[in-house]
Amino acid sequence: MNRKFIEDILKKVQEGTLQLEQALEKLREFPFEDIGFVRIDHHRELRRGFPEVIFCQGKSIFQIKTIAERLWKKKNLVVATRADEKIYQAIKEVIPEAVYYPQARIVSAGEVKPAINKGKFILIISAGTGDIPVAEEAKVTAELMGNKVETLYDVGVAGIHRLLEEKKLVLKANVLVVVAGMEGALPGVVGGLVDKPVIAVPTSIGYGASFGGVSPLLTMLTSCSPGIAVVNIDNGFGAGYLASLINNMNIEVK
Amino acid sequence: MNRKFIEDILKKVQEGTLQLEQALEKLREFPFEDIGFVRIDHHRELRRGFPEVIFCQGKSIFQIKTIAERLWKKKNLVVATRADEKIYQAIKEVIPEAVYYPQARIVSAGEVKPAINKGKFILIISAGTGDIPVAEEAKVTAELMGNKVETLYDVGVAGIHRLLEEKKLVLKANVLVVVAGMEGALPGVVGGLVDKPVIAVPTSIGYGASFGGVSPLLTMLTSCSPGIAVVNIDNGFGAGYLASLINNMNIEVK
Amino acid sequence: MNRKFIEDILKKVQEGTLQLEQALEKLREFPFEDIGFVRIDHHRELRRGFPEVIFCQGKSIFQIKTIAERLWKKKNLVVATRADEKIYQAIKEVIPEAVYYPQARIVSAGEVKPAINKGKFILIISAGTGDIPVAEEAKVTAELMGNKVETLYDVGVAGIHRLLEEKKLVLKANVLVVVAGMEGALPGVVGGLVDKPVIAVPTSIGYGASFGGVSPLLTMLTSCSPGIAVVNIDNGFGAGYLASLINNMNIEVK
Amino acid sequence: MNRKFIEDILKKVQEGTLQLEQALEKLREFPFEDIGFVRIDHHRELRRGFPEVIFCQGKSIFQIKTIAERLWKKKNLVVATRADEKIYQAIKEVIPEAVYYPQARIVSAGEVKPAINKGKFILIISAGTGDIPVAEEAKVTAELMGNKVETLYDVGVAGIHRLLEEKKLVLKANVLVVVAGMEGALPGVVGGLVDKPVIAVPTSIGYGASFGGVSPLLTMLTSCSPGIAVVNIDNGFGAGYLASLINNMNIEVK
Amino acid sequence: MNRKFIEDILKKVQEGTLQLEQALEKLREFPFEDIGFVRIDHHRELRRGFPEVIFCQGKSIFQIKTIAERLWKKKNLVVATRADEKIYQAIKEVIPEAVYYPQARIVSAGEVKPAINKGKFILIISAGTGDIPVAEEAKVTAELMGNKVETLYDVGVAGIHRLLEEKKLVLKANVLVVVAGMEGALPGVVGGLVDKPVIAVPTSIGYGASFGGVSPLLTMLTSCSPGIAVVNIDNGFGAGYLASLINNMNIEVK
Amino acid sequence: MNRKFIEDILKKVQEGTLQLEQALEKLREFPFEDIGFVRIDHHRELRRGFPEVIFCQGKSIFQIKTIAERLWKKKNLVVATRADEKIYQAIKEVIPEAVYYPQARIVSAGEVKPAINKGKFILIISAGTGDIPVAEEAKVTAELMGNKVETLYDVGVAGIHRLLEEKKLVLKANVLVVVAGMEGALPGVVGGLVDKPVIAVPTSIGYGASFGGVSPLLTMLTSCSPGIAVVNIDNGFGAGYLASLINNMNIEVK
Amino acid sequence: MNRKFIEDILKKVQEGTLQLEQALEKLREFPFEDIGFVRIDHHRELRRGFPEVIFCQGKSIFQIKTIAERLWKKKNLVVATRADEKIYQAIKEVIPEAVYYPQARIVSAGEVKPAINKGKFILIISAGTGDIPVAEEAKVTAELMGNKVETLYDVGVAGIHRLLEEKKLVLKANVLVVVAGMEGALPGVVGGLVDKPVIAVPTSIGYGASFGGVSPLLTMLTSCSPGIAVVNIDNGFGAGYLASLINNMNIEVK
Amino acid sequence: MNRKFIEDILKKVQEGTLQLEQALEKLREFPFEDIGFVRIDHHRELRRGFPEVIFCQGKSIFQIKTIAERLWKKKNLVVATRADEKIYQAIKEVIPEAVYYPQARIVSAGEVKPAINKGKFILIISAGTGDIPVAEEAKVTAELMGNKVETLYDVGVAGIHRLLEEKKLVLKANVLVVVAGMEGALPGVVGGLVDKPVIAVPTSIGYGASFGGVSPLLTMLTSCSPGIAVVNIDNGFGAGYLASLINNMNIEVK
Repeated sequence: MNRKFIEDILKKVQEGTLQLEQALEKLREFPFEDIGFVRIDHHRELRRGFPEVIFCQGKSIFQIKTIAERLWKKKNLVVATRADEKIYQAIKEVIPEAVYYPQARIVSAGEVKPAINKGKFILIISAGTGDIPVAEEAKVTAELMGNKVETLYDVGVAGIHRLLEEKKLVLKANVLVVVAGMEGALPGVVGGLVDKPVIAVPTSIGYGASFGGVSPLLTMLTSCSPGIAVVNIDNGFGAGYLASLINNMNIEVK
Repeated sequence: MNRKFIEDILKKVQEGTLQLEQALEKLREFPFEDIGFVRIDHHRELRRGFPEVIFCQGKSIFQIKTIAERLWKKKNLVVATRADEKIYQAIKEVIPEAVYYPQARIVSAGEVKPAINKGKFILIISAGTGDIPVAEEAKVTAELMGNKVETLYDVGVAGIHRLLEEKKLVLKANVLVVVAGMEGALPGVVGGLVDKPVIAVPTSIGYGASFGGVSPLLTMLTSCSPGIAVVNIDNGFGAGYLASLINNMNIEVK
Repeated sequence: MNRKFIEDILKKVQEGTLQLEQALEKLREFPFEDIGFVRIDHHRELRRGFPEVIFCQGKSIFQIKTIAERLWKKKNLVVATRADEKIYQAIKEVIPEAVYYPQARIVSAGEVKPAINKGKFILIISAGTGDIPVAEEAKVTAELMGNKVETLYDVGVAGIHRLLEEKKLVLKANVLVVVAGMEGALPGVVGGLVDKPVIAVPTSIGYGASFGGVSPLLTMLTSCSPGIAVVNIDNGFGAGYLASLINNMNIEVK
Repeated sequence: MNRKFIEDILKKVQEGTLQLEQALEKLREFPFEDIGFVRIDHHRELRRGFPEVIFCQGKSIFQIKTIAERLWKKKNLVVATRADEKIYQAIKEVIPEAVYYPQARIVSAGEVKPAINKGKFILIISAGTGDIPVAEEAKVTAELMGNKVETLYDVGVAGIHRLLEEKKLVLKANVLVVVAGMEGALPGVVGGLVDKPVIAVPTSIGYGASFGGVSPLLTMLTSCSPGIAVVNIDNGFGAGYLASLINNMNIEVK
Repeated sequence: MNRKFIEDILKKVQEGTLQLEQALEKLREFPFEDIGFVRIDHHRELRRGFPEVIFCQGKSIFQIKTIAERLWKKKNLVVATRADEKIYQAIKEVIPEAVYYPQARIVSAGEVKPAINKGKFILIISAGTGDIPVAEEAKVTAELMGNKVETLYDVGVAGIHRLLEEKKLVLKANVLVVVAGMEGALPGVVGGLVDKPVIAVPTSIGYGASFGGVSPLLTMLTSCSPGIAVVNIDNGFGAGYLASLINNMNIEVK
Repeated sequence: MNRKFIEDILKKVQEGTLQLEQALEKLREFPFEDIGFVRIDHHRELRRGFPEVIFCQGKSIFQIKTIAERLWKKKNLVVATRADEKIYQAIKEVIPEAVYYPQARIVSAGEVKPAINKGKFILIISAGTGDIPVAEEAKVTAELMGNKVETLYDVGVAGIHRLLEEKKLVLKANVLVVVAGMEGALPGVVGGLVDKPVIAVPTSIGYGASFGGVSPLLTMLTSCSPGIAVVNIDNGFGAGYLASLINNMNIEVK
Repeated sequence: MNRKFIEDILKKVQEGTLQLEQALEKLREFPFEDIGFVRIDHHRELRRGFPEVIFCQGKSIFQIKTIAERLWKKKNLVVATRADEKIYQAIKEVIPEAVYYPQARIVSAGEVKPAINKGKFILIISAGTGDIPVAEEAKVTAELMGNKVETLYDVGVAGIHRLLEEKKLVLKANVLVVVAGMEGALPGVVGGLVDKPVIAVPTSIGYGASFGGVSPLLTMLTSCSPGIAVVNIDNGFGAGYLASLINNMNIEVK
Repeated sequence: MNRKFIEDILKKVQEGTLQLEQALEKLREFPFEDIGFVRIDHHRELRRGFPEVIFCQGKSIFQIKTIAERLWKKKNLVVATRADEKIYQAIKEVIPEAVYYPQARIVSAGEVKPAINKGKFILIISAGTGDIPVAEEAKVTAELMGNKVETLYDVGVAGIHRLLEEKKLVLKANVLVVVAGMEGALPGVVGGLVDKPVIAVPTSIGYGASFGGVSPLLTMLTSCSPGIAVVNIDNGFGAGYLASLINNMNIEVK
């Protein structure tokens, strides 16, 4: 069940083969189904261009499994973030096709959207080794949304030459996601080099005065380089999602 | 002096009419000039697609005036943000063409870039009347960068029907900048309606537990709608700048 | 032992069948009994219309069991919040009638007060699936206090249509409890739709900049919709209690 | 223009004397009018039972004056909070009937709603002399909404006997608004005495570790007395508004 | 080894039976002994009237055991706070006389100082059941320092009558230690009733906006009752120690 | 009107020359008088040993003047803190005897209590020159309560020898008030030298990371020296008041 | 009066021309003189190698003038920081030789120490134009302590090429002071380039989430480049002082 | 592979025995090798005088082992901080020479640099027993960098005589590292005694209002003693590293 389902209804209305009342009924019942503890937002794909994603943290295995199964039946496409091995096994019981990306902590099932923006890529940069799980969450998200993704890991500002050595790659990127914990200075430096949008992701990696990600968050928000915007601490999914929206701007699907 | 200046040099090098040494000399001297208290970054236009902007807050009238004059002589394009009437008068003394946008607190001089993305517009939404100065800073910035901009002011979530009434406009926008103080909930609601990038701008408008913008900042960072990223409190310029970068993604200048 | 006990004493005093001194003695000894580690406030029902509730967090199993037993002997009514399975088993040993509501983490025993406000209901709304335990704590509390309760779960602002679809239910509610973590924007939106009191409950559900409930707490406190008041983070009991007080305002028990 | 306006339209539609199309047109144009910087929410009275209130802080004199005039023309009822003498004079120019309550910092014009809940009163309690302006804002708001209001000022917990002396008054109140700065302990003590809803208002009165109202805010949120809910720091208007909603619960207007 | 040891030396110097040089040598070597990881401050009893106390938290079992043994050999008096059962067992191996107070988490060995202030007592008050461990730490500390101690537990402000019932005891106390978590309002109320010093101890008991003791700490610091001073969160030992100093003010040991 | 007034009543009751009813009437009317904006707590002297003090900050000149006049008429003793020159002039209009201590910002009128504790003194220590106003507030308060006070100013830990030079004075003090801004380390050092109670007062003097007194406040709360307790930032009055209570412990007035 | 004064005394003692008692007397009286509100620490030069500096903020003109005069009479060397034009004029009245550095806000009088470390220089780097006053405070301080100082202003990370262009100068510096507001990322980048000590100075320049210098402070503390240490927000004096100590390490004055 | 490797290349270029192109190739490939999850910064030794250190916290055993092995092969020198016993065992598998310092939590392998600064030592001071692990991290780091190190543990300000007893040692030190948790006052006191650079290290040791190291951090930043700079909470490595840089200032290696 997907965008085509809605289009079919609308076309039938246009052709006069479906009454307005009936069409309304069909559509109204469509948007979400109340399964007690969750209102699955089947409508979201229409509105947002991507099906609802299961954020696993804080949900029980039973809840995750139930939601995954429903989404699978209606859409043949399931994405679950912040998933561990145990969650993966539970989803696999109901969706044997499910795949697990352990570093990104993502479980997905179903056909990946074909690439729209051909040739232009999103570049995911990470400051340290510890920031890689968040960077991978962004990467897998953007790839599931059909984008070409390149990565450049462990190029923090304490050794700025590591970044400058790869300046060519940086300048070729269409959108940049920059992931950093501790001091969080990398997005500001990258933002000063390029004329493309930079999405900054603070991580909770660090100790002492990094205060679970507060320090890099503030650094990124107060960056003097324009063209940067910030997402929540450790929110690799949000960064990958936004990067995908931006990477496909102004491209018409024929 | 602009991008063309660099291209000319590079072409001459390619054609062999300019020695490498001389070319290097010319380019090296170009990027910025040290005028004591500021290193004007004439190079920025090359790197970032927009000339250096004067952030007036914390600078003396004398400093602003000097920087403005230098930029004007080299580029015929000056943009100064967080400017009050007094700063405007000072800039006008050296650049009679300067124009002042009092609500946006921006002074600009020189030819506005012609629109690249024709037909598609940036929508600036504000939650309250008090948020308008920040919204206008975003609007004027985006317009100076050649974009078509629409506005929708005073549609905060305390009267959600005011936003829903204008849903058509909201859905037609190519990029959205959503400005809100106090509770800062508007970007999350807007973000749930559209499939376009939303740039959220918290403002310092509010009292008590809004803590000078901390409350809307946290609200926006923790929004459950994906596709949203946040800039610094009251940073209308940064939002307008980023919105312009995104609005012109994947569009080739012929 | 209840309100009747006091009334009897007072009537006897009025009729002259009990001396003032004796009455004083009886009443004085009544309000609470010092059992070493806790002063059970048997008086509270008189003052507050609801017996003392055992807040289990931070108390030992032994303490909870002892308090429960004493309350049970005096009142035949026990309510314990933040209780887990182990606490339930301990209470059951001394009060076999005890019932456990696992999602709400409440143990109760004794006769539920009959409904006073017939026909009018409290509506408990939750933004996400993760907020349900707190919502259930509010729900069970309000029901134990004799109210009719309806629920509307998983209707966060990231998909505002899910709430608007249920607008009829929302508008019919007499009092509303709105539970939300992360950005906490839901109470403000709900508050803008209704002309009934809204009790907002921030939860600690979220990650990164939600800072254990600080972000939704600030959002709710700074909401622009009047008619909203806020209780402590995760305080479902307090919200259910207050909602019950309000739902029964101006209703005389005949 | 008021609730009656809408009822008339709807009745005509029911009676068939007005076409649906025309009715829609009339209603659609009604909810708010866009006067550039503000979307006056004329619809609010319908939804919320009270006309839109002008929150003056952060608005220019010109904006306040314009909004007041529009509201006056449509409703003959204007309420402006956080107003100083200068704002009062400006409003008076366009609405000569305007009245100013200097302690409450409220300007109002137009007929006060007749009392609905007769006999039962809201009690406004303040801890200190410095908290009185916020208490008065609550009082005037509740009175403008047609309630009977009593006050009990300067009865902070440092001299608890001052409160206990007035226990009779406290126990007779139908709803209580308790305003306190510094340590903010008064609502918790009052809440332990009564079985009626208590609305706690922290104020920014204090010094040092009261941190502009943060200390009393936290005290009130963590109060062990159930039946208390908290509004924003210094938000006397919100407290008065909510107290009025609660005081009139379950009372039918015949 | 104690105050007498020093007095003997000084007297001998006065009498001329000990050379200055030798006396200096003896005293210099006395104050502390460096045992690698700790400089035991044997001098402290001289300066402070109480031997050094072992704060166990953050020390290894081995370190605690070694320090305890040294103190025992020199003074025959050992006090260890924040000690668990395991620490107690370790100390017992080297000091079989050691006694454990499980609620107070204190291990002590050696003769308790005889009471100086006879007849006048320190009153330890706690707001809730959860605050008792901290209150007990204060109680045992004050008793080990030779004071008479009374306790009054579970009399928080949510049921102010529980405190007022015991007003006689409160008014008879010579010094008061008031322990409270959550909202922390009890010390301010007690402070308003008495004309004796009140030592306020915030505890980390609570949830949500009590932020690990920050809420009661701020409440106590901003209390409007003069005569109150505050110690660190959960610092029962410090409160008991200070209460003992105050309780014995101006009393000469004959 | 003072303690004697109450004693007279009570004696008459004891002697049978005054009926219980009449005595109650006299006493009941005594405690405080409601003059609209303030409940003057004439009762406080009875309970607390010191008349109510006017905290001027946040009160209008009119309010201060009125309260001062009432207190003067009933007690012939007025103390007003946080008073500036203007407030002094206003009080002088109604109480010509009023005296002003400009550094301490205190206005007082009426007979100072004769010293109770003869020979033993309170020592007020300040770390820096900027902390002196707070130290003087403590000093004048303690003197008005009849204590002998010594001072030792500008002996901060950055030059610890300045303190050690005066060690004799420090060791002779009966109670110590230590006032410090910036790092606030002085109370901990002083506390390690003496065996008397130390009241620590953080001040808002400082810049940058002293955050208006938060830094010295935390330093003092976490001090490793036992025997220290802390009052609110800049609360010289509270420290002087508490020091006076402690300095007069266990001393009977004959 | 200086180090020579002490040496003379000590030599005389060594030579036997001065009695121990007399020497002690002379020295004891020397360290500081108590002039009521301040204990001038004439001793400091001995201990610290630099005379006491007057931190003007929070001191009255009268206090500053008096301290300056005393220092001048004893040492012929006065340094006052955070001084404005008015303070300068006041000092000039008593010390006509006084010089004012307006950008650095420093007044000094007396002979500058001759350079010890010849040829090696301290480099002061600032990120933005607004940070220059703090940078200048560091510069003038280091120069008054006899160091050679170079500056590199306005080379923030938003245009990293501005810093890299000057890499030669950066690599030649012996000690580096890096001053930055807003995001504060510059010290970390500089620290990654050099093998010399870097002193990082956060400034209060910025807006929104820079929170008066908290954001750059955290960034600098959490920097991944080792070899960096941080001073207080806006503490240019402290940075210049420490840089001077380091720049002259291991150099013997012959 | 070390500094010599680069020098050789450069000399060959100078002598003409190596082509520029080839030299560039060799150098380019040198700086770091991308092994997927980490870019080992072999270049760092050149730039910073010390090889890259493995910060183990947040890295997997596999990652640590791989990095250690690579570093070992290229440099024969490995230093890993925040390492536990398990990490040590893993490194030992690939580098049998590895040594473990359990208190300092450091694993190292390879030849320690010979001492440069002979005779002058770094003094590591700790306030409490709990701070020793951080102090040891600083000590081992400085020793691995070839410095002579002395220690002085458990000399916190609560017993200032313990520090003053060792004043001779303190005054002889060339650089001082002062480690303190809780109140963090020790660096300020030490800083006031010496004329050498003091590196202050706040630790997370403490409870209550020490807030995981925030309290000592603020104390150290706001210290009134100049000559002090602060590193991140618990950052013993950074302090030892910086102390080494400073201790070897201005010393030429012959």
